[in-house]
Order: sequence, then C-alpha cells, then structure tokens
Amino acid sequence: MTTLVFGHKAPDTDSTGSPIIWSWYLNEIKGTPAKPVLLGEPNTEAAFVLERWSLEKPEIISDVAADTPVVIVDTNNPAELPADINAADIRAIIDHHKLVGGLETKGPIDIRIEPVACTATIMYKMIGDDLAQAPTGIKGAMLSCILSDTLEFRSPTTTQEDKAIAYALAKDLGVDITEYAAEMFAAKSDVSAFSDAELIRMDSKEYEVEGKKFRVSVLETTAPQIPLDRKDSLMESFKTVEAEDGVDQVLLFVVDIIKEEATLLVPNDLVKTVAEKSFGATVDGDTVVLPGIMSRKKQIIPNLKL
Amino acid sequence: MTTLVFGHKAPDTDSTGSPIIWSWYLNEIKGTPAKPVLLGEPNTEAAFVLERWSLEKPEIISDVAADTPVVIVDTNNPAELPADINAADIRAIIDHHKLVGGLETKGPIDIRIEPVACTATIMYKMIGDDLAQAPTGIKGAMLSCILSDTLEFRSPTTTQEDKAIAYALAKDLGVDITEYAAEMFAAKSDVSAFSDAELIRMDSKEYEVEGKKFRVSVLETTAPQIPLDRKDSLMESFKTVEAEDGVDQVLLFVVDIIKEEATLLVPNDLVKTVAEKSFGATVDGDTVVLPGIMSRKKQIIPNLKL
Repeated sequence: MTTLVFGHKAPDTDSTGSPIIWSWYLNEIKGTPAKPVLLGEPNTEAAFVLERWSLEKPEIISDVAADTPVVIVDTNNPAELPADINAADIRAIIDHHKLVGGLETKGPIDIRIEPVACTATIMYKMIGDDLAQAPTGIKGAMLSCILSDTLEFRSPTTTQEDKAIAYALAKDLGVDITEYAAEMFAAKSDVSAFSDAELIRMDSKEYEVEGKKFRVSVLETTAPQIPLDRKDSLMESFKTVEAEDGVDQVLLFVVDIIKEEATLLVPNDLVKTVAEKSFGATVDGDTVVLPGIMSRKKQIIPNLKL
Repeated sequence: MTTLVFGHKAPDTDSTGSPIIWSWYLNEIKGTPAKPVLLGEPNTEAAFVLERWSLEKPEIISDVAADTPVVIVDTNNPAELPADINAADIRAIIDHHKLVGGLETKGPIDIRIEPVACTATIMYKMIGDDLAQAPTGIKGAMLSCILSDTLEFRSPTTTQEDKAIAYALAKDLGVDITEYAAEMFAAKSDVSAFSDAELIRMDSKEYEVEGKKFRVSVLETTAPQIPLDRKDSLMESFKTVEAEDGVDQVLLFVVDIIKEEATLLVPNDLVKTVAEKSFGATVDGDTVVLPGIMSRKKQIIPNLKL
C-alpha cells in the first residue's frame, strides 16, 4: 500500500515541498512506495516553487481512509490534519512545531521534531549522504522550504543549521539566494486573486488566551500595501470568519518581510487591548505597526495577552 | 537551572540508566547542567546495574515544580509521569514507545522517538562519536538498558540496531553478553522481598479494550516458579489493586525469559475469555501457558480482545 506523505491544511511552501522531498526519499532510497499529497490548494509561493523546479503539483485530498499508511510532516496538530487522522496508520512524523498532543499511534514509530525553522532542514540531516542522488528539483524544493520558513533568514526562528544547509544547497544548485528569495516572496505577495476570507485563513492558527479563541493570521509579504489597501473590507470579513470558524476574534498581522515589521489590523477595543498588552504598542486608529515582529511562533503566540 | 532527566514511574533498567546516560551527555558534552532523577524505587535489576557499574543511585522525586527544565526519556505517556508534567519546561523527549498524546510543550523542542527496543539505543546514535569520552559506567549502563529491554535479544521488539550497538558496547567494555545478561536477569528474578501488590504494579501499563480498563502487568524472570508459587495470593491481591487503581481487571503475565513463553494467571471467566480470544489459548485451570509471548508492546497489547 502506498504511503501518503502530507503536511498541514492550507499548505505553504514547507507543507508542499517537504512531502515531495520525503516521498522521493522513501521511493528512491528506502524502497517504500510513497506519494506526496496536499490538504488544500498550495499558496501562491508554493505554486511558484512547484513551477520553478518543474515539480508536479501533488493531488489534493481531504480525507484519509482508515489504516492508510501516512507520514505527517510540518505539523503534529490534529486540528491541521484530516478529521480521521488517528484512524490512519501513522508511520512517521517529521516536524518543527511545539508538541500540542492529540495524535496517537498504534505502535512505536519514527518521530523527529526539532526546534529549527523548517521541516526540510530536518529532512536534509536525516537523508544525509543519500541526498547526492536527489534530482535538482528535490534540492530546489529543500532550499525553497528553508528560505520560505526563515523569510530568507530574517525570522527569529532561523537557526545556524537552517542557514548552513540553505547555503550548501544554493551553492550546489548555483542559485543566488537573494534573487531567488525575492522571486518567491513576490509570488507570495501576489494575493490579489484571493477573497478576504481566503486571505484571513491562508496562514492561520487558532490559539486560546484566557478562555478566548483567537485565529492568529499572518500575511508575509514584500508588498504590504496590497492587503492594507483592503483593510476595511478585511476587517468587515473578520466577523464572517469568526462566526463560521467558531472563534472569538481574528488577529491579522501583515508582515513586511523587507522592513521586518508587522502591521496589525485593529477593528475593535479587544484587539487594541491585545496590541497594547502583548506588544506594548500605542494604538491610534485601525492599524498599528509592530517593529521587528516577524514570527507567529516565536514572537506573537508566546506574547499574546488580553 | 539544572535540567532534570527522568523516565517513567516504576523505573526499570532503561528508565534508570537512560537518565544517567543523558545527564552525562548534557553535562559533559553539551555543557548543560543536568541531573538524573527517578520517579520511584528502581527494580531489582536496575539496582543491580547501578551497583555493577558503580553508578550513584539517582534521587527519587514525585513532583516537578512548574517551569523546571526537564528531559523525558523512555515514555511519552503523561500517566507514567508526575501529575503536573505539562507545567514543567519540557526541553526534550527521547523515547521508543507509541505516541499516546497528552504531553504538550510551550515551544518547539527536540523530540526523537524511534521504533527500536530501547531508549539507550537512540541515545547511542544521538551521542555519536562523543561516546568515546564517556566513562565505563555510562557505556555499561547503555549495554544494560539494551540487554534488559531486549531480554538479551529474545524479545520481538529487538532490532538490528539494538543488537549491533549492544555488541559494539560489549566488545568495548570486554563484557561477555550471555554471562552478564544472566546476572541481570537473576537480579530481576529475585522478587521475594516484594508484596503481591508491588509485584503486580512493578512493570505494568493500563490499557483499555472495548470500554474495559486493564492493568497489563508483566514479570520477566528466569525463575518463573518464584512468582507462580504465589499465584493464589497474587490473584487474591488483584481485587485490591483493581479497586485502588480504578481498573476493571489485572492481567499478570509471568514471562519466562529462558523458555520464551508467558504464563497468564486466570482468576475468572473474564480473563479466560481474554486468553482464548487474544491468544487462541485453551484454558484449563487458573493459569495458561502462552508459547512465544515475550513482549507486552508487540504481542500482548496489540492482540487484546474480549
């Protein structure tokens, strides 16, 4: 039976590229039949990466049948996975997020979670010397995942390992990191085709603070003016998304990758309080700039207060 | 702040030795102050191993204060850990059991779980070349953990990696594996000092089948007659343990390491049904021999039916 390899819902570059990388490793090196799949349409950056490295877009699935062998990458959160995930035959988990609990396996399996910026960084180490056999597209996917998750090393989640591996891959591939990252971020910034609700849910995680459920959404972009020009309409759509998703409040951070700052939309007094208490910001109007804030994992979630 | 390193409650050799091994690694190689502790009195085999390799018996603790940095080894099951474990600052998890869910971490941490027989096997690989700097006692603890968890390679949980590493360590230490394992198993078999309830809880895990809670207890021994001579008294004590621990039924398997078989005590029709349905056994009387059954993880738990 073919092992399905997938990342989280609303796949970004790491959740699109890492399943492709690991499926290559399982098929070609380990001799285990495997197939990458996606739990949703890849974002515009991930779509660019597939095209750039001539990688086939994986099939999109929404459920896994019971007892299907699966490898989960780039998440260990059941909320970001198919509803019936614990009925699958989970064979391995490779991830770089905090352990949230909730996944269960039938027997002991391979689990590797490390506090690095990117799943592909861990895979690079696990694959080791066998990477020499990888086609260009696999190495290109790895480099893309690291540049995406580290925001070209600007994110405070970046480790020395992520950097060293990205530079080694770029050298091997003959890729100029600055030029290539700029192309990736331009693709990610091209969000004109998305509805407000799609933008809000594109890169979003639920998080509870003092009994209140937040949907913490991030838009990483080199062109912040594109989403900010739509701020009135976006804030109006918060209410619909909140009602549909059963959360109390959307927090939307527009992260300017170049200026290394985030702009938080402030539709009401609750978000104003969050901005003041969490980031020491002085809020005047319906947006507030938070200098240096780039990472939901390292800077936003750990500081959320109300 | 010193990092506490510990395994599961009712510590066996792996849960006693692995914290000592990893604390050595953190202190001496990583420069992170660390201290091994135990969540209970080590079993007789683990006590023998400490003595044999002149290792200091770690302090026994029952709680960890909030925000204490901890490394959890040889389990990922909150039921086998201090009640307040999720309030600790969990820094790493190294384990070889199935993921049960329930542990949560505040941020991304190092988690390494592999389907090998023993935690020390994983540590051997993680420590790598730095093991050359380890004192004899650390290597002796590693070898002991592997021989204990694999029942000298007889358990079906044994992998090629466990074996290869044990042979490498034995060669390095100049230890005859067969002789040394016999000494360890003799120590484990010396259970005369324990009460019935202590024997039942010594190596025991809770497991639910069709809404019924079982306490699945295993006594690995080279002298099965010692516990079997006490079977009437042991079965009488099942009721007390069941009432105190809130389980429906104790299942006690006396595993004969030499003959590679288990004897299950059969105090009532429920256990008779379990023996028949799970292992295809024909039960006649208050014990039944199950040929080839050695491993709770691989052979008992996955087959339990009623």
